[in-house]
Amino acid sequence: MIQTEQGGCREIGSAEALQILRSLRDVYILIHRSPDGDCIGSGYALYHILREMGIRSRVCCADPIPAMFRDITEGITFAEFEPQAFVSVDVADRNLFGDLPERERNAEIALCIDHHISNTHYAKCLHWNPDSAAACEILFRLMQDNGIPLTEQTALCLYTGIATDTGCFQFSNADAAAFRAVAQIKAQFPHLPYARLNRELFVLKSEGRLRLDARLMEHARLSADGRVALVYLPYAWMEELHLSAEEIEGTANLPMQIIGVEVGIICKQQPDGSYRISMRGGEHADVSVIAQHFGGGGHIKASGCSLREGEPEAVCTMLMEAASGFLREQL
Amino acid sequence: MIQTEQGGCREIGSAEALQILRSLRDVYILIHRSPDGDCIGSGYALYHILREMGIRSRVCCADPIPAMFRDITEGITFAEFEPQAFVSVDVADRNLFGDLPERERNAEIALCIDHHISNTHYAKCLHWNPDSAAACEILFRLMQDNGIPLTEQTALCLYTGIATDTGCFQFSNADAAAFRAVAQIKAQFPHLPYARLNRELFVLKSEGRLRLDARLMEHARLSADGRVALVYLPYAWMEELHLSAEEIEGTANLPMQIIGVEVGIICKQQPDGSYRISMRGGEHADVSVIAQHFGGGGHIKASGCSLREGEPEAVCTMLMEAASGFLREQL
Repeated sequence: MIQTEQGGCREIGSAEALQILRSLRDVYILIHRSPDGDCIGSGYALYHILREMGIRSRVCCADPIPAMFRDITEGITFAEFEPQAFVSVDVADRNLFGDLPERERNAEIALCIDHHISNTHYAKCLHWNPDSAAACEILFRLMQDNGIPLTEQTALCLYTGIATDTGCFQFSNADAAAFRAVAQIKAQFPHLPYARLNRELFVLKSEGRLRLDARLMEHARLSADGRVALVYLPYAWMEELHLSAEEIEGTANLPMQIIGVEVGIICKQQPDGSYRISMRGGEHADVSVIAQHFGGGGHIKASGCSLREGEPEAVCTMLMEAASGFLREQL
Repeated sequence: MIQTEQGGCREIGSAEALQILRSLRDVYILIHRSPDGDCIGSGYALYHILREMGIRSRVCCADPIPAMFRDITEGITFAEFEPQAFVSVDVADRNLFGDLPERERNAEIALCIDHHISNTHYAKCLHWNPDSAAACEILFRLMQDNGIPLTEQTALCLYTGIATDTGCFQFSNADAAAFRAVAQIKAQFPHLPYARLNRELFVLKSEGRLRLDARLMEHARLSADGRVALVYLPYAWMEELHLSAEEIEGTANLPMQIIGVEVGIICKQQPDGSYRISMRGGEHADVSVIAQHFGGGGHIKASGCSLREGEPEAVCTMLMEAASGFLREQL
């Protein structure tokens, strides 16, 4: 990693990052809102590392930690104390702290450990590797580089972060370095319940969510020779199946499971009768232009837009036709 | 690996296995019926290895290679020739060759490379490691031990076998050694389309299969406080959704995706009106006793039975009640 300065933020290597950590007292570890396995894993791993150094810390998150991560959080009760220092892990930008108290949101961050290419260099020091699959992989490397032994607890945290950010080693970021890190973790702690964890993280769903997925897919509409797929989620189903907003995360990926689909769309009716639309693109499609056409935006492979009104049937037909049209131009 | 003899079968290490391979000419590589990623991957990898040695070979399988493995099979046309020798990979027992011509089924197998604990030592020589996650991992190790360089083609084959036999690194057999092997493969060939392969192997399904899964889950029945789940597949749905028997493989795992389910059951109506039932057990349940109760059998976590007749509704209710009863005794 090259050590560079940018807007008062200094990029540093793992030895200096550790030096900074050792110099801190009473640390608040900030992770991002809507916490995922990587920020939870790296946050709690750092808590354990600091504890071993005799440094008091706590993990702070604007939103509750989802129940599926209970293996990480179980048995840990953070002490109440006034923070003397703040660090952040897996947080690309200050606005991703979410709805934390103002003190935390505006705090000077002594050290940020992150892997997002989009990191805005908001911290005083940044230990950063955008080539890493996960913040947990960077933390693992920091421990290895500096001879900090893995423990059962840190191993569990770091495994969780690397596994979740790579989609259980399925995505393209699951590279040789990520596999090597997990090989070392598993070699040292072969008997952690990896298979059970993977089932809980990647397979199990609530009955309501499974029934929702089922309904969505059963009523999936295809057009453009099966290259455009749309699922429609009426608000009534949310109520009927007692689903929270958290529980329906990831439904946008459903239509992309169908062989041959290049554009996958989910249209979610809102309580006020408006619609939120998410789109996903396959190997060849650019869905950002479709979203832009409807006043939205996003990335080439993941975009979204909103529509204020219309009959569900008409809205879905319009979306399908627009997507088919754009796809014809792109392929 | 210990070198032992058993019923005329000699267990050998990787150096001797390679020596045997080098001594062969005009080889038929036998893989098991209903071929999966591991036997296809190891079979084709061995074909490439033998080709590099100037040895003619072909992969022989009783059943067609599923289309999802086209990255492995594409561009390969086996020559027609009379076999002088037979080897097998990933085949635990001779009866798993399936419906091959009698010459192959009864052939003397010069060398078997396998990882199944249940291997029946039917070959003359067996290069075997029941601790390996996949036959492909054993073949990878054989190449490493003997300085045979990986090629793009063997890397793709071996990756496919290790990934599929570990459920994309999700199962408990995805140990440190498996992760190390893949780390080495990815380090040497970082630009193979791993992410696309994973999508095709683990995510994508046909429209018909997705609609079937959806219907099954939407009509899933739960009992025993959500610990028993049953899905019923009427034969009419198979026809309506134009599904082949191959396409519905793995549906037995569907009910086990529901949080809290300990016994998952699928009841498939057959064209003649009888029923085939598959059961899966969670962490605590033993489903083999339930299957035995209905004249079937199997493993603790995966069993099955058949029922000759009955109204669908009555059959499902009976199965649910029996499963709930056994579960009450077991927990």
